[in-house]
Amino acid sequence: MKFEQVDRVRPLLWTGAALMVLDQRLLPGVQRSIACHTAADVARAIQTLAVRGAPAIGIAGAFGMVLAAQAVQADNGGQALAAISATVDELMQARPTAVNLRWAIERMKSRLQGMDSGWMLAIEQEALAIQAEDLAANHAMGVLGEQCLPAGARVLTHCNTGSLATAGFGTALGVIRAGVASGKIARIYASETRPWLQGSRLTIWELLEDGIEATLIVDGASAYLMQQGKVDFVIVGADRICANGDVANKIGTYAHALAAKAHGVKVMVVAPSSTVDMQTAQGSEIDIEERSAAELTHIQGIEVGAKAAKVYNPVFDVTPAHCIDFIITEKGVIEHPDGPKMTACFGALSSP
Amino acid sequence: MKFEQVDRVRPLLWTGAALMVLDQRLLPGVQRSIACHTAADVARAIQTLAVRGAPAIGIAGAFGMVLAAQAVQADNGGQALAAISATVDELMQARPTAVNLRWAIERMKSRLQGMDSGWMLAIEQEALAIQAEDLAANHAMGVLGEQCLPAGARVLTHCNTGSLATAGFGTALGVIRAGVASGKIARIYASETRPWLQGSRLTIWELLEDGIEATLIVDGASAYLMQQGKVDFVIVGADRICANGDVANKIGTYAHALAAKAHGVKVMVVAPSSTVDMQTAQGSEIDIEERSAAELTHIQGIEVGAKAAKVYNPVFDVTPAHCIDFIITEKGVIEHPDGPKMTACFGALSSP
Repeated sequence: MKFEQVDRVRPLLWTGAALMVLDQRLLPGVQRSIACHTAADVARAIQTLAVRGAPAIGIAGAFGMVLAAQAVQADNGGQALAAISATVDELMQARPTAVNLRWAIERMKSRLQGMDSGWMLAIEQEALAIQAEDLAANHAMGVLGEQCLPAGARVLTHCNTGSLATAGFGTALGVIRAGVASGKIARIYASETRPWLQGSRLTIWELLEDGIEATLIVDGASAYLMQQGKVDFVIVGADRICANGDVANKIGTYAHALAAKAHGVKVMVVAPSSTVDMQTAQGSEIDIEERSAAELTHIQGIEVGAKAAKVYNPVFDVTPAHCIDFIITEKGVIEHPDGPKMTACFGALSSP
Repeated sequence: MKFEQVDRVRPLLWTGAALMVLDQRLLPGVQRSIACHTAADVARAIQTLAVRGAPAIGIAGAFGMVLAAQAVQADNGGQALAAISATVDELMQARPTAVNLRWAIERMKSRLQGMDSGWMLAIEQEALAIQAEDLAANHAMGVLGEQCLPAGARVLTHCNTGSLATAGFGTALGVIRAGVASGKIARIYASETRPWLQGSRLTIWELLEDGIEATLIVDGASAYLMQQGKVDFVIVGADRICANGDVANKIGTYAHALAAKAHGVKVMVVAPSSTVDMQTAQGSEIDIEERSAAELTHIQGIEVGAKAAKVYNPVFDVTPAHCIDFIITEKGVIEHPDGPKMTACFGALSSP
């Protein structure tokens, strides 16, 4: 399949001395990048959602470590790692739910640990490898996921799992791109994804950039769409996949999955293996990030809700494994995921 | 129960020569009323959502007919009705899904039909009676619904079904007010209700006006709340209740109901009998209004979504009777509604 034609947007560009972050808070109205020259700049970009999407924040975290390391004097990797340990902790804590950030930082630490004098070049190459491997994983998942779709599939996706959320191509949106490229997908619905509107602001925009038509709905309309028989597959990404197959993803995912189960609609989760966390046994153990009330009471700085409103704003939820038909990673397809199938694919539960 | 303490807002005030409509498009930031001096003014207020809520638009339609009739010369009610027939059609078509508008206009027509010289006073009194009866029905439903709640109930409501949506007190929100007054309700969650944000803009605001605390969530978070065991009852209003117990209500209601069914949470629908349409056999026969793309791509005039986005914006959905535990009208409580129970309460299916 010719993926170049359906994938033109990139959220993260490494210049050798800075990470250029396409500011996703301003999209789709304004396309502007932030130049991150320090690890603190990167941590802030992650915290404030200038860059978001589980794989993308993992990649950003890796380049944040490169920037931190470039700022210290050290004879070997171990010394460098010791010198940047506070910064590494700051990066690690930028956002709690997506496991990719921790995974990328741990991988960078391991690489650094063993290195001698060539450590500075080595970790830059490691970050670039993480980015390149993510793109390759997305292409592989696109092919694997596309094979699970019926011809003429009408699909619904939630949040943004596209090029903007990854090194490129996307996870769930990568499968959708692959299905568009192969001609299997007849229709795409994108839910707007409150509160941050990743669907209307990012997914619709990046698909339009690639000439792909999608129909925007409010999050609450998915069950009604399915009742009318208009959807065959829900295809979403993940921020963390547990050892038993439970999936943490953007708030609203579980509601779509329940509606899908009630109407015989299939549910597919697409994420690179860096999203799999075999150290977390089940969904109830995941730290679900809560964000500010202002995300509901204000939209683009305009006050829309009652001033004194009390707000509960968890930004992820957990979809239990029994609601999921397919988990797609670059390692393969797991149908009807459960603990044994996850272990067979990703190895046994190990301590941290 | 002392309902005055928990009910202070009124959306519609009749002056004798104009209908003052509290402009709900501007809430909560601005409290301003529109003076409707003609039936066309009223039709426009209904179409543009300055007034919304099934019972409130029924009442507004009744006063619209009074304004139309006040503008014509006629010796009796029949002549007056003939003179305003085009205007009546215009009012009737202002919004398609809620049946209360049609119900109120038909009632006004019947009243006018039989009247002699006193017709002008009579229809003004009829409109005032519709308004007063709605308030009384809401108080009655408040008592009936409250009796179905367990002590310490944690409830979730969707859209706005309060004083703003009715003559006063509210339907679903009336039951919640009654539960607050009696001390049975421990916690209220209000979903923001995209695209029009009736939850964050109206429900939270009117509860705060009455000193009642509620917690705002995004629509997609309800299933996650229920998964965590934080909700006992979903309490919603209705725009139309069919002869088999199917309920049309604000988009997103069905998704909440499915999540409730998956978690053993009860679902209560509260609406006056003017919302019951025994001429519509089942939900699939209801004309579901679709509104403009701009309701999703713009918020308060600010462009938030991608410019060229294609949008599907049905503003109601249908919750099948089997997902509903209680239908409350002023005529009583129907548990586990179905066709025979609906017929027993509201009479047999008749032709229009």
